[in-house]
Amino acid sequence: MSQTSEPLRLGIAGLGTVGAGVLKIVRQKAALLEARSGRSIRVSAVSARNRDKDRGVPLKDYAWEDDPVTLATRDDVDVFIELMGGSDGPAKAAVEAALKAGKDVVTANKALLAHHGQALAELAEANGAVLRFEAAVAGGIPVIKALTEGLAGNEITRVIGVMNGTCNYILTRMEDGGLTYDEAFAEADGLGFLEADPNLDVGGIDAGHKLSLLAAIAFGTQVNFAGVELEGIGKITIEDIRQAADMGYRIKLLGVSRMTGRGLEQSMAPCLVPAGSPLGQLTGGTNMVVIEGDQVGQIVLRGAGAGEGPTASAVMGDVMDVARGLRVSTFGQGAKGLVSATPARATTPAPYYIRTALVDKPGALAKVAAALGEAGVSIHRMRQYDHTNEAAPVLVVTHRTTRAALDEALAAMKALAVVVASPVALRIEEV
Amino acid sequence: MSQTSEPLRLGIAGLGTVGAGVLKIVRQKAALLEARSGRSIRVSAVSARNRDKDRGVPLKDYAWEDDPVTLATRDDVDVFIELMGGSDGPAKAAVEAALKAGKDVVTANKALLAHHGQALAELAEANGAVLRFEAAVAGGIPVIKALTEGLAGNEITRVIGVMNGTCNYILTRMEDGGLTYDEAFAEADGLGFLEADPNLDVGGIDAGHKLSLLAAIAFGTQVNFAGVELEGIGKITIEDIRQAADMGYRIKLLGVSRMTGRGLEQSMAPCLVPAGSPLGQLTGGTNMVVIEGDQVGQIVLRGAGAGEGPTASAVMGDVMDVARGLRVSTFGQGAKGLVSATPARATTPAPYYIRTALVDKPGALAKVAAALGEAGVSIHRMRQYDHTNEAAPVLVVTHRTTRAALDEALAAMKALAVVVASPVALRIEEV
Repeated sequence: MSQTSEPLRLGIAGLGTVGAGVLKIVRQKAALLEARSGRSIRVSAVSARNRDKDRGVPLKDYAWEDDPVTLATRDDVDVFIELMGGSDGPAKAAVEAALKAGKDVVTANKALLAHHGQALAELAEANGAVLRFEAAVAGGIPVIKALTEGLAGNEITRVIGVMNGTCNYILTRMEDGGLTYDEAFAEADGLGFLEADPNLDVGGIDAGHKLSLLAAIAFGTQVNFAGVELEGIGKITIEDIRQAADMGYRIKLLGVSRMTGRGLEQSMAPCLVPAGSPLGQLTGGTNMVVIEGDQVGQIVLRGAGAGEGPTASAVMGDVMDVARGLRVSTFGQGAKGLVSATPARATTPAPYYIRTALVDKPGALAKVAAALGEAGVSIHRMRQYDHTNEAAPVLVVTHRTTRAALDEALAAMKALAVVVASPVALRIEEV
Repeated sequence: MSQTSEPLRLGIAGLGTVGAGVLKIVRQKAALLEARSGRSIRVSAVSARNRDKDRGVPLKDYAWEDDPVTLATRDDVDVFIELMGGSDGPAKAAVEAALKAGKDVVTANKALLAHHGQALAELAEANGAVLRFEAAVAGGIPVIKALTEGLAGNEITRVIGVMNGTCNYILTRMEDGGLTYDEAFAEADGLGFLEADPNLDVGGIDAGHKLSLLAAIAFGTQVNFAGVELEGIGKITIEDIRQAADMGYRIKLLGVSRMTGRGLEQSMAPCLVPAGSPLGQLTGGTNMVVIEGDQVGQIVLRGAGAGEGPTASAVMGDVMDVARGLRVSTFGQGAKGLVSATPARATTPAPYYIRTALVDKPGALAKVAAALGEAGVSIHRMRQYDHTNEAAPVLVVTHRTTRAALDEALAAMKALAVVVASPVALRIEEV
């Protein structure tokens, strides 16, 4: 079924764990890859910052390039594999050079695509090249393929995901280990789970990049990372986690995107999900993406979101597609047809969880209830806990309400003399 | 990116709920499908047993053929969509005719492929046609695509699946509703969940068909449905379900396939899985497929296994692939390269759950323990329950053991005078 029996020749820039993992697969599984794709796959040349580092795989069989741009445009490279990272700089320059030279590109670089996805998709198309990025989203889970191809007969209604394993690890450890946020953060850091700039993880930026790519495919829109409402997990307390659990929920850094009459919603923020749902049951560093389509209903995909093997698996999935002659537009349709959607703040009505603390005086709770009622926010469940230091923790689960009504209610609560802790609200995502 | 801007013309044979669902998608989503595939998709002709039945979608725009073979070979049909069902007869004749005429074929027919997959794959290849069957396995879950394409860089180590929603519904109702097997069966029947021949469902045949297709892709082997060890759910009692739950397990009709040194294991049988695992938490009619690869680790895919929308979604995924020019060999590699694997009885050591009942006499339990020990089966946990009618139910969870040792232990137990209920053993699948 393959188009040609010529070998497919790879050039790999970036030889960290993922790059080394790809090299190992190509070396060790040559016969399997050839049986499946109908052609041999081999590496022509590689590039990295340090030539002498031991990566557990010999490099002597491959040409070496110091400059990834030179690598990307070599005559003996059919597919340029970009594993350097970074939204700009050498990664961008090399990918652009490869596409301009008509080379196919496979990348794991979510930042690059989140910032320059539209321009790169147009560049690929203009040069008859494909640009694939399965490894950029949710590690080993073949979610880009599922969304772009497998579910192509659906109008996608919502995409939800837990796509940063580090955040999920921290939240899981706060819940099951009783750690504070700072303790869980330090533990994750000690295990090497955090990016050099930890805000990429805990600030939701990395996961936000991924969400913006899924949204582009799902809704046929131009990638718009700037339109993602971002909120990190730094403000989540152990009390939030315990109280949410007490109410039957778990807190996740949740990406949610849907197209509404008001525009494209993209939100990456801590949310509550039912503890018994697949998302609620996801613990540790595992990722999960939930795709909802008008025909298929709900599809749940779960797997490792990072690591050498899973990420290299995703890179190789894209390489095998190219080897087999499977050529799909970057975001599932012609780049020029992708529309520039108006970003909409998450306006779809949802239930919310509100945490605050009240002075221990008669009538305090009634005043909070009244403030909510006046803003049109209806209370589903309300609990007051044993007070500490004269303040009694109170939490409220509302019925579905608009964000505007909620903000009004929160402002009114803050103005009450009986409210001693500025109220914190988290959306409850119904899944 | 598409190969051509000519319209893609479909011929659909079989207009049950799925066929009608496909017609609706093609009619109602014409613009979306064209934006994504780069070409228009339209239906040229249809065929079904009854022309006059109201299917909620008008047929007057399409040519009608009484004979699906004639439909399959029409000049104005590029893709033949077979939704008639049945492993032989008209479905087989029409698919063969289409392939011989060089038409691409999309089918939801697991029985056809389980019985004739190898011959049909060879026929497709000889005629330059593709044969796609995403809808044949696990309904709307794009599992064929994930396994064939997304995970193509992996050596697959195990495939596990709950792929018959009816069986999972019956087992769920026995557990959460306290129904007997017969009651739950009657309820499923009343809801129209059962095939005309219910043994296709509860005997594991339908799910076994699906497993044999996944195994062929996963392990590069010729489809061998006859090599699937089949056991239905008819012998599962409510006590099994309760006692398994008591031990932290749930019972599922579980398909498991792995390649071992002894050959290809394919088993579709009731198994215990940890209640807290994704498979254990799967309730009702939902399907789940777990794929394990040497690189990717464990990928879990979950979604609706049947129904108009989900199945039509899968059919359309295949149609969109054809429209986009994505052409992959039927089982992920050239048909002639698929090997004829020796079927191996499930010989991989596993823990087992054993249920029996003993006379209420001193030393009875010790005799059972001794029989297990003499066969080399080590006991992990053992419980004796309050006795009824002079017999005390006993259940044992063993450590990992071979099936041969287990069978020896079961035979020895049966021979004991104190054992009054023939022991029943179920494998515990570690996930």
